[in-house]
Amino acid sequence: LRKKKQDHTKILDRLLQGSQTALGQAITLVESNNPTHHEQASAIIEGAIASAGKSIRIGITGVPGVGKSTFIESFGSHLLKLGKKVAVLAVDPSSSISKGSILGDKTRMENLVREDMAFIRPSPSGDSLGGVARKTRESIMLCEAAGFDVILIETVGVGQSETTVHSMCDFFLLLKLAGAGDELQGIKRGIMEMADAIVINKADGENIKAANTAKLDFKRALHLYPTKESGWMPEVLLSSALYNEGIPEIWNLIRSFERKTLENGYFEENRKQQSKFWLLQSINDQLKQSFYQNPEIKTALEEQLQAIFDKKTSPFIAAKQLLEKYSKL
Amino acid sequence: LRKKKQDHTKILDRLLQGSQTALGQAITLVESNNPTHHEQASAIIEGAIASAGKSIRIGITGVPGVGKSTFIESFGSHLLKLGKKVAVLAVDPSSSISKGSILGDKTRMENLVREDMAFIRPSPSGDSLGGVARKTRESIMLCEAAGFDVILIETVGVGQSETTVHSMCDFFLLLKLAGAGDELQGIKRGIMEMADAIVINKADGENIKAANTAKLDFKRALHLYPTKESGWMPEVLLSSALYNEGIPEIWNLIRSFERKTLENGYFEENRKQQSKFWLLQSINDQLKQSFYQNPEIKTALEEQLQAIFDKKTSPFIAAKQLLEKYSKL
Repeated sequence: LRKKKQDHTKILDRLLQGSQTALGQAITLVESNNPTHHEQASAIIEGAIASAGKSIRIGITGVPGVGKSTFIESFGSHLLKLGKKVAVLAVDPSSSISKGSILGDKTRMENLVREDMAFIRPSPSGDSLGGVARKTRESIMLCEAAGFDVILIETVGVGQSETTVHSMCDFFLLLKLAGAGDELQGIKRGIMEMADAIVINKADGENIKAANTAKLDFKRALHLYPTKESGWMPEVLLSSALYNEGIPEIWNLIRSFERKTLENGYFEENRKQQSKFWLLQSINDQLKQSFYQNPEIKTALEEQLQAIFDKKTSPFIAAKQLLEKYSKL
Repeated sequence: LRKKKQDHTKILDRLLQGSQTALGQAITLVESNNPTHHEQASAIIEGAIASAGKSIRIGITGVPGVGKSTFIESFGSHLLKLGKKVAVLAVDPSSSISKGSILGDKTRMENLVREDMAFIRPSPSGDSLGGVARKTRESIMLCEAAGFDVILIETVGVGQSETTVHSMCDFFLLLKLAGAGDELQGIKRGIMEMADAIVINKADGENIKAANTAKLDFKRALHLYPTKESGWMPEVLLSSALYNEGIPEIWNLIRSFERKTLENGYFEENRKQQSKFWLLQSINDQLKQSFYQNPEIKTALEEQLQAIFDKKTSPFIAAKQLLEKYSKL
């Protein structure tokens, strides 16, 4: 026990000094499903939390083919030149099936990978969205405690993952392509409403005209939505990540957002609301887990379900009886 | 106690004989938040459940102005002429604010109200969607036990209410109007995918041409969706509820659906899945309710939340500690 305690104390100390190796080790503990690792992870987080929070957390989404990796490579490199420490995390619950479809192939971000001031971590795999979300939230805190001041959180937008990322970032950026058919590429309706900025990528060469048209279309569409709680009016920008064009403008926009929301109090309030959301979310997840994984409940649930199918009870009465049983265990 | 027991036994007996008065009394008990009433309601449901299930449950939705009340009036009258017993229920969580915006004004269905074979009940009010859902599900069972063979469940489509109604009906009907702008009237994207039929209402007079165009458009749109689990291909029909046109065709379509899904087993399987869904939903609701309404947990939750805001703990660690405390209470 003593040895282990020393282990995670050492990891914590080095993490707080900015060691990327220690950060990697701490995240590995957070991602582990081993209970001992979990305790060590909790101890590290408790030690790190006072130093966390001092970053801007930027969520980035867009359909496959929009150029997310190239964008993050270009955007991240720009931030490094400005002296920022950049961490790139991913939320991709589909990686449990495809074994890491995003960020798994780090070679797509080869410049960023080579930099000492950048930290890149693929999505934890083999887990539900809830599990991935918890691990990513904790990884964000660890990155911040290790001194990273810009956290990019990438998502492929499978199922609810965009909403999940939106609920853990300060600024939400939606990458789009110009030209028809994008609506059919699977961008879900609610996503546009969550965006603080839409960036039309690949705005280069023959695409420029179409990109400018798309910019006007999206601007018009954004004006149909009600004003955001942040008081921020989402903007539409063009970029060519491949040629590093439009990138500084995006960072300047995010800085404006940060200034504005720090000033009007939304930045802090939003983080508080997010923390509260994750607290309740974790409680609800764990309440369900304790109930459904209880062996006696498992058997009783099957029996009640059969009784419902046999028209001997109703779902609501069955639920009530199961909870009475559970409270007596 | 004995008196009460006799009371609800009497209600049950008369309900099973088809008494609308007893049905109304039973639903009032289901809707009550008084614990004694709740026990009586459960006893009635347990006695009624073996006689329930023998109906077709039809969900009906559409934006305000589409003519839902007139449609239900016309459709219901047609069914009565065919010798059916028709019950009309509503799911409208907004009625807690507006005090019954749909079905509250029964005068909009004056012909149906006058008929002995029709039973109309407005949405239970003053409750969350979860509460309204439970009460409506139980009311459906009671109506069936009282011999009603067609249950119409109307919803205004506020928030998640369409999804809720979809999860308690056999057939889901979406009412639409011809002409541009309907997309902006607030029909949410997922709703089209849930529809087993789209009925373009008010297809009369000068509207007929536009209605036919809309029919083609919707047909084309429906073909873009993947095949339904039911094996049913959704259809688009025209109606003029005001002039009772297109109504028999809609009922015939629903009968085809019923035959097809009874034959391929989907009808029963879907009801089983819905029962399972409501069982789990009720369990989850009650798990949360017991936790969050516990006075000691309430205090501890506030403290943990403050500790999170003060950067002394993380949402996940706080959740874990609250659950440990809860398990010891």
